[in-house]
Amino acid sequence: MSPPVAVDIDALYARLDALIAIAPLPPDGACRLALTEADRAGRDLFCGWAEAAGLEIAVDAIGNIFATLAGADPALAPVMSGSHLDTVATGGRFDGALGVLAALGTLEAVRAAGLTPPRGLVAAAFTNEEGARFAPDMMGSLVFAGDLPLAEARATRGVDGALLGAELDRIGYAGPLAPGAIRPHAFVELHVEQGPVLDAEGIAIGIVEGVQGISWQEFTFAGEANHAGATPMAMRHDAGYAAAAVATALRALTRRIPGLLATAGRIVLEPNLINVIAHTATLTVDLRHPDEAALREAEAALAEAVAAAARDAGVTHAARVLARFAPVTFAPMVREAVAGAAAAHGLTARPIVSGAGHDAQIMARIAPSGMIFAPSIGGISHNPAEATRREDIAAAVAVLADVLTTLCRKDTP
Amino acid sequence: MSPPVAVDIDALYARLDALIAIAPLPPDGACRLALTEADRAGRDLFCGWAEAAGLEIAVDAIGNIFATLAGADPALAPVMSGSHLDTVATGGRFDGALGVLAALGTLEAVRAAGLTPPRGLVAAAFTNEEGARFAPDMMGSLVFAGDLPLAEARATRGVDGALLGAELDRIGYAGPLAPGAIRPHAFVELHVEQGPVLDAEGIAIGIVEGVQGISWQEFTFAGEANHAGATPMAMRHDAGYAAAAVATALRALTRRIPGLLATAGRIVLEPNLINVIAHTATLTVDLRHPDEAALREAEAALAEAVAAAARDAGVTHAARVLARFAPVTFAPMVREAVAGAAAAHGLTARPIVSGAGHDAQIMARIAPSGMIFAPSIGGISHNPAEATRREDIAAAVAVLADVLTTLCRKDTP
Repeated sequence: MSPPVAVDIDALYARLDALIAIAPLPPDGACRLALTEADRAGRDLFCGWAEAAGLEIAVDAIGNIFATLAGADPALAPVMSGSHLDTVATGGRFDGALGVLAALGTLEAVRAAGLTPPRGLVAAAFTNEEGARFAPDMMGSLVFAGDLPLAEARATRGVDGALLGAELDRIGYAGPLAPGAIRPHAFVELHVEQGPVLDAEGIAIGIVEGVQGISWQEFTFAGEANHAGATPMAMRHDAGYAAAAVATALRALTRRIPGLLATAGRIVLEPNLINVIAHTATLTVDLRHPDEAALREAEAALAEAVAAAARDAGVTHAARVLARFAPVTFAPMVREAVAGAAAAHGLTARPIVSGAGHDAQIMARIAPSGMIFAPSIGGISHNPAEATRREDIAAAVAVLADVLTTLCRKDTP
Repeated sequence: MSPPVAVDIDALYARLDALIAIAPLPPDGACRLALTEADRAGRDLFCGWAEAAGLEIAVDAIGNIFATLAGADPALAPVMSGSHLDTVATGGRFDGALGVLAALGTLEAVRAAGLTPPRGLVAAAFTNEEGARFAPDMMGSLVFAGDLPLAEARATRGVDGALLGAELDRIGYAGPLAPGAIRPHAFVELHVEQGPVLDAEGIAIGIVEGVQGISWQEFTFAGEANHAGATPMAMRHDAGYAAAAVATALRALTRRIPGLLATAGRIVLEPNLINVIAHTATLTVDLRHPDEAALREAEAALAEAVAAAARDAGVTHAARVLARFAPVTFAPMVREAVAGAAAAHGLTARPIVSGAGHDAQIMARIAPSGMIFAPSIGGISHNPAEATRREDIAAAVAVLADVLTTLCRKDTP
């Protein structure tokens, strides 16, 4: 084992408070949409703390910030850890900020302990992870990994009409570093679960095995608006019925394919009147599964359910793919380090698959990567009421510090 | 049989054209919302035609217009026929106007034939049948039948904020006649079907047996918004699923209860986002059945389906009654007269139940009443594309004329 380092949890909470204070949302949340003044203020705080800690700061062309503690052997690739400082419009306290500050706190603790591990350590804050103002989400890590051209990212228009490149320039975070210039030995992200599993089971540490595959589709059914009182059931072309039948069929699908999550979160009928049979219905379906083959099976079964519902309802149907990500499996090296650190601290832990997207899944394309989850009380997320107990935060940060110092040894497998 | 009278169909079409021309909507519709300037213009046209025909015009306090051709015996109650001149915002050519103009044309034809039947004939145009601007619908006949106090009707606020009484005064149609002052011997309304049955079966005349009972309910499901990717299926409180399950269950209900019509025309999810489990879902259910016992059975089964869906989805539910009308059965005297006239003209005819509401169902509370349906092409209704073939209009008007002259005999059973 590497020697234990102790991250200052009081300091971490004071920094979380300072980030919240920029643009607070009761009871305990914040709004720091990417590349707004609030995001700039958060970035400035992070840079100030990193500078005060004697770390070397570099900003790349898409605005990702890297604070580095040099290792003993400059020839060795550093270990990187971090997350994001931006939030959704109704952001919580820990989503993103925890991972950035825990990484920063670890670098400070390593330095305070007088250690100089063989490999350097980098605390990273990625640009626009949430995608709430500019699509796509995970944009900073996508550009960093070389999977989204910088020019394309800069040309993005926000939901408020703003041009991303202009906003990045305006807040002063279009840096000189080339995206992807740092190729880490490993990447580790600490994040709150954003789901209820750890909290419900009373488990402290989630050893994230990977990120579920995501399949987002929109189905549009087109029928005929008719009088609800004068049209016999057999003569209807009820688009609303087709949409409802598909939304209902999703439950059966999840029973047939274990591990499948299926959600019809959005249903829109037209004209949406009590006494008119809907001529048009639009339905979105969000399918997630950790296994690509199972996700494909679910997509095929969904296509059948859509066709059957359209046939029953006497309507036409059309499908549109809104997003599709294959599942990501995290590196055994990181998963094993997390499991080992949790055990060393005597913490309860379980393997878990991330349902949400994270920068770590993009970083996994260029480096061995992994994640640590802390419990979210009641699974509440993207909500100012998002919360995690302080002892769970402290435990997860301690595990991250152990994992990073372990991975920093030259001989890490 | 009474001697046949011939209604001038060319004149009827010219009058329909004149009504459309007030506020036309392509391809063949109009917008004459109740008590607007367009409605006033339509009323003025009707009064002008009736006056030119030598009929006596009376307007009651809620704005219902009655054009009377006196009978030979003033002691006998007159036969009344009519419908409404107002339209929904996207009204069709025949909905309402046909029944008013066919009644007027019949009175003119009787007069032109030099006939003076024992009973008088009244052509009626009822105020605000559609309810599109001011609720409830069928308001003029409701006040006429004594089932809605005049003061309450006048105090109604429209969807545009206008006060009904002020609008009625403004257009000059708050008349001196007391509502209900005329107690007809019988009431007959000719209307287009507003459904597809007659058109699909190639039948010219619908002998309307009654009006279906109507049960309108709104169900609200309350669950919890959660991340679609991070919340296991078993831990969800998905209000959207509950609404979809109820909308889907309606089909099974219609198979179980023959003759039942069931429609979920309106579904609203919140927050209605692709990757968020809906915390709230609102669903309206429109149930119709010609038999009260069957309608009650359907309501009970629906309540069970709602409770089961809420249980499955892990959400709470609440129900609100939006409207409830018991089924109406029309008078055998009128139904037999319609069947006899259709047969005398060699027309195909079938009994049919009205799915939509009509002034005749209100008039049935105070007089033997009935209706004649003409086919609607494709069942299209409340739409400027509403259409009926001219030969079907001519046939239905001829049947109405026959029915009215039959009922005008003193000895009608």
